[in-house]
Amino acid sequence: MGNTFGHLFRITTFGESHGGGVGVIIDGCPPRLEISAQEIQVELDRRRPGQSKITTPRKETDTCEILSGVFEGKTLGTPIMILVPNKDTRPQDYDEMAQKYRPSHADATYDAKYGIRNWQGGGRSSARETIGRVAAGAIAKKILKQAAGVEIIGYVKRIQDLEAIVDPQTVTLEQVESNIVRCPDPEAYERMIERIEAIKREGDSLGGVVECVARHVPKGLGMPVFDKLEADLAKGVMSLPATKGFEIGSGFAGTLLTGSEHNDEFTLDDRGQVRTTTNRSGGIQGGISNGESIILRVAFKPTATIRKEQRTVTREGQETLLAAKGRHDPCVLPRAVPMVEAMVALVLCDHLLRHQGQCRTLDFDIPTALEGR
Amino acid sequence: MGNTFGHLFRITTFGESHGGGVGVIIDGCPPRLEISAQEIQVELDRRRPGQSKITTPRKETDTCEILSGVFEGKTLGTPIMILVPNKDTRPQDYDEMAQKYRPSHADATYDAKYGIRNWQGGGRSSARETIGRVAAGAIAKKILKQAAGVEIIGYVKRIQDLEAIVDPQTVTLEQVESNIVRCPDPEAYERMIERIEAIKREGDSLGGVVECVARHVPKGLGMPVFDKLEADLAKGVMSLPATKGFEIGSGFAGTLLTGSEHNDEFTLDDRGQVRTTTNRSGGIQGGISNGESIILRVAFKPTATIRKEQRTVTREGQETLLAAKGRHDPCVLPRAVPMVEAMVALVLCDHLLRHQGQCRTLDFDIPTALEGR
Amino acid sequence: MGNTFGHLFRITTFGESHGGGVGVIIDGCPPRLEISAQEIQVELDRRRPGQSKITTPRKETDTCEILSGVFEGKTLGTPIMILVPNKDTRPQDYDEMAQKYRPSHADATYDAKYGIRNWQGGGRSSARETIGRVAAGAIAKKILKQAAGVEIIGYVKRIQDLEAIVDPQTVTLEQVESNIVRCPDPEAYERMIERIEAIKREGDSLGGVVECVARHVPKGLGMPVFDKLEADLAKGVMSLPATKGFEIGSGFAGTLLTGSEHNDEFTLDDRGQVRTTTNRSGGIQGGISNGESIILRVAFKPTATIRKEQRTVTREGQETLLAAKGRHDPCVLPRAVPMVEAMVALVLCDHLLRHQGQCRTLDFDIPTALEGR
Amino acid sequence: MGNTFGHLFRITTFGESHGGGVGVIIDGCPPRLEISAQEIQVELDRRRPGQSKITTPRKETDTCEILSGVFEGKTLGTPIMILVPNKDTRPQDYDEMAQKYRPSHADATYDAKYGIRNWQGGGRSSARETIGRVAAGAIAKKILKQAAGVEIIGYVKRIQDLEAIVDPQTVTLEQVESNIVRCPDPEAYERMIERIEAIKREGDSLGGVVECVARHVPKGLGMPVFDKLEADLAKGVMSLPATKGFEIGSGFAGTLLTGSEHNDEFTLDDRGQVRTTTNRSGGIQGGISNGESIILRVAFKPTATIRKEQRTVTREGQETLLAAKGRHDPCVLPRAVPMVEAMVALVLCDHLLRHQGQCRTLDFDIPTALEGR
Repeated sequence: MGNTFGHLFRITTFGESHGGGVGVIIDGCPPRLEISAQEIQVELDRRRPGQSKITTPRKETDTCEILSGVFEGKTLGTPIMILVPNKDTRPQDYDEMAQKYRPSHADATYDAKYGIRNWQGGGRSSARETIGRVAAGAIAKKILKQAAGVEIIGYVKRIQDLEAIVDPQTVTLEQVESNIVRCPDPEAYERMIERIEAIKREGDSLGGVVECVARHVPKGLGMPVFDKLEADLAKGVMSLPATKGFEIGSGFAGTLLTGSEHNDEFTLDDRGQVRTTTNRSGGIQGGISNGESIILRVAFKPTATIRKEQRTVTREGQETLLAAKGRHDPCVLPRAVPMVEAMVALVLCDHLLRHQGQCRTLDFDIPTALEGR
Repeated sequence: MGNTFGHLFRITTFGESHGGGVGVIIDGCPPRLEISAQEIQVELDRRRPGQSKITTPRKETDTCEILSGVFEGKTLGTPIMILVPNKDTRPQDYDEMAQKYRPSHADATYDAKYGIRNWQGGGRSSARETIGRVAAGAIAKKILKQAAGVEIIGYVKRIQDLEAIVDPQTVTLEQVESNIVRCPDPEAYERMIERIEAIKREGDSLGGVVECVARHVPKGLGMPVFDKLEADLAKGVMSLPATKGFEIGSGFAGTLLTGSEHNDEFTLDDRGQVRTTTNRSGGIQGGISNGESIILRVAFKPTATIRKEQRTVTREGQETLLAAKGRHDPCVLPRAVPMVEAMVALVLCDHLLRHQGQCRTLDFDIPTALEGR
Repeated sequence: MGNTFGHLFRITTFGESHGGGVGVIIDGCPPRLEISAQEIQVELDRRRPGQSKITTPRKETDTCEILSGVFEGKTLGTPIMILVPNKDTRPQDYDEMAQKYRPSHADATYDAKYGIRNWQGGGRSSARETIGRVAAGAIAKKILKQAAGVEIIGYVKRIQDLEAIVDPQTVTLEQVESNIVRCPDPEAYERMIERIEAIKREGDSLGGVVECVARHVPKGLGMPVFDKLEADLAKGVMSLPATKGFEIGSGFAGTLLTGSEHNDEFTLDDRGQVRTTTNRSGGIQGGISNGESIILRVAFKPTATIRKEQRTVTREGQETLLAAKGRHDPCVLPRAVPMVEAMVALVLCDHLLRHQGQCRTLDFDIPTALEGR
Repeated sequence: MGNTFGHLFRITTFGESHGGGVGVIIDGCPPRLEISAQEIQVELDRRRPGQSKITTPRKETDTCEILSGVFEGKTLGTPIMILVPNKDTRPQDYDEMAQKYRPSHADATYDAKYGIRNWQGGGRSSARETIGRVAAGAIAKKILKQAAGVEIIGYVKRIQDLEAIVDPQTVTLEQVESNIVRCPDPEAYERMIERIEAIKREGDSLGGVVECVARHVPKGLGMPVFDKLEADLAKGVMSLPATKGFEIGSGFAGTLLTGSEHNDEFTLDDRGQVRTTTNRSGGIQGGISNGESIILRVAFKPTATIRKEQRTVTREGQETLLAAKGRHDPCVLPRAVPMVEAMVALVLCDHLLRHQGQCRTLDFDIPTALEGR
């Protein structure tokens, strides 16, 4: 267990950084959706290493193959298996880490839990595992788009203390992809790139915040109690490597307001639809989407694997020093953007199907002012 | 779906605020654990309304009964059903809310999703639902204590901008329970109480941050990918009503550091055990507990239901004004403390059993420096 | 785990024979379904003890209360909790069984698994547990009826070697309920009743076969691989107490035919719908319903608890003799009929919702000859 | 959903008959188990086509590769992905079936459910899907053997009306594998082979019964209610293609006995262990293993795809005739033996881990006469 996510739109990922490959099985995808490896590759290319001077130089094309579940260009309703073979592996770079635990990395805890680990390239704890998520997320995005017109856009909101100014209501994918740091604020992204290049030269690393917006989400997705939409979103993004925090809507800053300042008052739009005048709720009230944009933020810590020398211990219990070799991102955030988008898409798509199953099986009328986007 | 949490130690809650009662089924509890309604009641009393001048005056004793799963004072291994009947209900207080949607509350989204809702006291979205969680959490806490000596202590870390200074390594339950706001910092709690009383008089509300520490957690709990310990903790606490954010360890502040500043270096303690010199990881690395204290924070927004008049709409689609009646907490945080503790206990207990199942079935040796706390 | 059944229409039962009560939580029920305790009680009355001279004389009205999930006569979409308190308990009847294991009963295995058991009335292994299933099944039946016109009718097909002749296409509930053994064949049921009364006088017991038909099941329910409709039906009914075998369609007898004899040839009916000329498949092909009647049979062993003296051992490991006291059914089959119907309804309802979720979310055209009943 | 089986030892299969390949992800395998592709291949070779004159002549070596989850010959505790590429595919053999529905096959129901199907070689409904199950079953068998000494042996018990005489307590794998029909009774297997060869010449097919025994199963595996061991076994084997019935222990024949004839009396063996003098329960009482051999039987219908001409309809709704081309087994039973063993192993292994998780986490004493093997 632990490698599966979702209930009706359910994915299971597999693979270690230096094993035969990584990938995903998607079980529960609706049938007759047109999908191609090329479409999925577009998202994988946003995630892959070596895409710019500020990401790890590991040379992986991350080329995906669809091995099952698609026939003559359409989904069958059966499991879709997507495989990305591992190519540019250098296990020798990790010889030292077979013995020495990288500080703040998973090396020591994997050994403590399992008594064994694949130390080559981080094994299962490598960010390569997210390939399967991003591939599955590409399909989830397409379903959301076709079924309800949902748009999901993530971007770098902050690198260390360099914060971007972005309007989540209007930001476009083109703005995000216009630069290698995936920050749509032209004032901010150049300084971010400089900062990352500087830290890379020092053999150190940086963290920051990714923000993600989902627009045109239908009303009614989510569940009242444990599977609240924000709870599943929190789990989804907090299961990404290197995450330390999650916010929905007003987040931690919202705790500084009073209720009368924080509440989103209701109004009717010109189509007579119930809307809110503000969106501190972040598009979710009581665990259920309210038709406003869903806005969330995720904190990513600075990359744990750094060239700078640090104190650590060996597997056999000796204190020692480690200056990590291998090819690592000085800052994961540019590549984390498609990962966050994928997790948001997976959560929303699963809830869309669950909602359809529970609430659309019996065709009773819902008052029209309430339903719809 | 959506009302069940956990895999091996699995709870399902039920109940609306003004229906016949609320409660929980706990499925998967280990057999032969001594447990009594009295022990569970202790935790419920920390959660119940009317416990102080800064909580809602609703008069509920929240007295629990164990209807199944316990025999002669011990758990049977079969489902434990705990029921708390609803007593002090005043549906008439909510007549207006049958028609008018409370801003930033679940009223409108429930209607949009289900086309129906129990508007009395918030129905399923009422914080009364958390009674089942707190009852189950009391049992989870006892298992964790007996099996591994785990201690879980939550407390109010901040109310609006009033922040407490607390050492999570040494804070005690007695310090937390010494005052009605559940803040262990004597400097802070008096000002917090004053602030809450003031806002109550205004008919407004406040939010803040609950911090929670789990000490003596065994190494090795958690799973590498989707069921990372921090991901399940995030989902658990973000499924509580009124939450807007989650942090583990260094959280959002950690993103301001470089990798060399942020990493927790390893060392050996005098028993030869692998330890970290700092704990920015918050006790979890790679999704798996590392034996250090697990420390997390949760943002709670100001209570949505307030007496102050606000703009809203009716179910039939008319714009209107609402000044909420009913008995509501001016600040949920004092009562949220046991809820957060419960969710942390439920997650840890579930992972303890899962770890036991997967990793202890075959008795191969694990190198001793790695295992154990 | 182990006390929950279903994925989207998901039930969790609780309760021991002599604890505070038994019942069920239904999670995932579609909203706005009209339902009352009275409707559920109709099914519970078919299951309850003491209903005739050939059932156990335990006097339980098995009166159910709906404690949550229903508001003003309609389902809310939130968990429906149904409770049946235990009334006519006689723990003293079971004093001997606290020490002596009943042959072919769950006493010894529960002790081996859990090291503890509630020996009063069989505890969790009592057929009282099925109350929750029958209550939930009543709701599932209503959904199936409203959404698709499905009719589910079970009946006693055989008692020991007394076999009834029944046409599953035309049998009615009235025929089944016309006699206390629930066998619609007038030639057979009188001899069945005599046989049961005779065995009761001897302090012994009988088994037999329940057959169940589901008519007007929509095409397309079920899943290709592990969650094949027959697999979930098999699990559902084989989870009932005292079951020893399951057949779908032609069952074991079908293995005597050749492929050309066994295959159901396809034809078109006068509405142009694809039909089969025979129904050895039992309404399911490749794990998915084909629109023909689903027909299955379940073998129930003779009741294990009998008055006749038998050899056994005590909990402490002494060989001894046991002639069981307590009030037991000489033959479970008349009361098993509503239990089998309930499990069939639960499986079909869950698959109806799952199908709706996966296959109805995207509105692409399905060729009309294939869809529909 | 629907392609995953198990809770703690959880497998997900993927693949169509003529797509890129078939395989399985095993999630939850205990770490540090020695396993090799060669060991898995041994089981796959028992399942593969073309192994004898009485199986389909399709030439597939079914060579498996382990792509993840194993490092230096040992399991990592992370997902094990096993892939078997499709090689000897002849899609052209199925051109006619793209349009014509094979009677009693999944063609029509897949189209009705999904509105699309991969008609090449049966697509997802092909028995090739069971490759993933058999591969995973090989690992489950090894865990059961190492952890508890469990032996699982399946064999052909009956072909049409030719029934073998086999003692499940003493039958060996060598006896089963001594002949191509996998029947350990020398009197029976020759006649079975003749019968299958004769039906093959006729272009028709046969069915029969596979029996399977699991010896040395520890006491205490299984759950009281829905996840009764026999219920999970029933689901497991009834999810195999072509199954029509399931029996545990005395099965349908047991319904002809009275309770006093049917009950398994308890006794103590010379080690003071609780045993039964007979085994009509089939090793399970109250859903939980009692330490006796688990014995079950599965009915397999005659293969649906036959060369004999039959009436059917086309996808477009025209009546027609079909004499199936392609390479098909005249009788699936010889190859079904390892499939049944695999499902039994998967169920037992999952319950072993679940039992370990729930019942071994707290170390309280269980009276020694009860525990043990």
